[in-house]
Amino acid sequence: MSATTTSTSLKEALAHACTDIEATIDALLPMVPGDESVLLEAMRYASLGGGKRLRGFLAVEVASLFGADRRAALRVAASVEMLHAYSLVHDDLPSMDDDDLRRGQPSTHRQFDEAIAILAGDALQTRAFEILVEPETSPDATIRANLALALARASGAAGMVGGQVVDIRGEGRALPLNDVRRLHALKTGALIRYAAESGAILAGVNDERRDAIVAYGRDLGTAFQVADDVLDTTASAEELGKTAGKDEASGKSTYVSLLGIDGARAEARRLSDQAREALSSFGAQAAALRALADYVVERRN
Amino acid sequence: MSATTTSTSLKEALAHACTDIEATIDALLPMVPGDESVLLEAMRYASLGGGKRLRGFLAVEVASLFGADRRAALRVAASVEMLHAYSLVHDDLPSMDDDDLRRGQPSTHRQFDEAIAILAGDALQTRAFEILVEPETSPDATIRANLALALARASGAAGMVGGQVVDIRGEGRALPLNDVRRLHALKTGALIRYAAESGAILAGVNDERRDAIVAYGRDLGTAFQVADDVLDTTASAEELGKTAGKDEASGKSTYVSLLGIDGARAEARRLSDQAREALSSFGAQAAALRALADYVVERRN
Repeated sequence: MSATTTSTSLKEALAHACTDIEATIDALLPMVPGDESVLLEAMRYASLGGGKRLRGFLAVEVASLFGADRRAALRVAASVEMLHAYSLVHDDLPSMDDDDLRRGQPSTHRQFDEAIAILAGDALQTRAFEILVEPETSPDATIRANLALALARASGAAGMVGGQVVDIRGEGRALPLNDVRRLHALKTGALIRYAAESGAILAGVNDERRDAIVAYGRDLGTAFQVADDVLDTTASAEELGKTAGKDEASGKSTYVSLLGIDGARAEARRLSDQAREALSSFGAQAAALRALADYVVERRN
Repeated sequence: MSATTTSTSLKEALAHACTDIEATIDALLPMVPGDESVLLEAMRYASLGGGKRLRGFLAVEVASLFGADRRAALRVAASVEMLHAYSLVHDDLPSMDDDDLRRGQPSTHRQFDEAIAILAGDALQTRAFEILVEPETSPDATIRANLALALARASGAAGMVGGQVVDIRGEGRALPLNDVRRLHALKTGALIRYAAESGAILAGVNDERRDAIVAYGRDLGTAFQVADDVLDTTASAEELGKTAGKDEASGKSTYVSLLGIDGARAEARRLSDQAREALSSFGAQAAALRALADYVVERRN
């Protein structure tokens, strides 16, 4: 398969998954009557209608590779996208990154207000866990409990939220490369790795296969972040749909400030290749996951 | 057993449970090195060293009534107390209730800062779910998944967080009694009811027993809230360890504003009696739960 064909089929698979994930989130966050309707509106605003769905796509593609039920995989994908959406809503708050723009639209606290944004984030996190442990996700309670456990480990104090704190504390300080690596492994890497792993957990595969997918997810997540740092330096706000050049302005150490643009590009490519290698024991069915490893370092937004 | 004896043994059981719950939370939130240590400090600050532990005590006592393992029950108790602590940290934030004082101490965002308080609340919620689905809570994955599912339903958009939004939206408006009942059933009732139910889920009892405990937890939770409204009107800030008279100052409809002090006291007593009646099929082993129904309407803080 040529690179162009792979890229075209990846785009089709991504678009197909995006549509299905969107519909699944829509169904899993039904509107309610009463004063609390604004909460559901804010939860839907934050999680529907945008985003690359990288995490959800990973969950769906890995589940598909191992033959898991697609409807169940879409629930897991919707769950990880809700978890991701909650983290963005809270990250954008005035006391955190104070960002008015998200995906080219007002961030949730600008569209609603700060209290509703905090509560919508809180309830999105709860819903993400709830979906995983609902019987509809798997008839096997061990799989349900293991999905929730893996999500908690990826997103809590020892994962995403811990990384956010390390990030806040590191602002305005020059961090060495190892600390930047660790920061991103926690802040964004853990949830991307989990997204890939969740498809393997759902399918109930053996440890060897699960380990290969975890290695793929870890390298893909780091490649994604290095590429993000490059984009933050080189792309315009219009291309990104969010404020550009923010990292430099806030004095954060990034892969670009530490390695230079060319060095960061080479590092992203190296990690992307390594992610592909982790899939070597899988056949043609892993083509989309391989193409995704290229896509995350070649994307323009 | 006379009322005085019951009260003394309840106090002893409460004190014993408080000590054990405190030690369990302490062990489940170990400090970590690195920049994220401040996150763990804030999580521990928010969840250790105070509070009545009503929810944790309910989990432990119901588990004990049905013969569940005490170590496992203490994990469930620690989990529900962490969930409760997260809700208090977020409720106290400047954009929400803007409260500087909690249990006579600076609230978490005053002791640390707003960003750390938001993230500590987020990570406490995650940890609450994580603890429930860890294998140490039960060898039975169905029980682990069901505990997490019940907690999610009690604390998310259709429970505690939904109630918080209804509360915010209702401020400065005169609400009828039914709306106030519904608000509290969501905001505080759902988690108290869950706390009781969690002990029954952990013990794997039949539906009849679980339903009786749910009925008890629901009435106890409402009685607790009605008594809280009475205390907010009659007790001093020193007795409460938090700002007194806040509800009246913010123009909130309360059981007291709707029923009068004597009417609210009578309502609390009626609900407390009803909670005791729900336990009629259980024997002397439910004495502490019955005494608790008296305690929540007779307490001074």
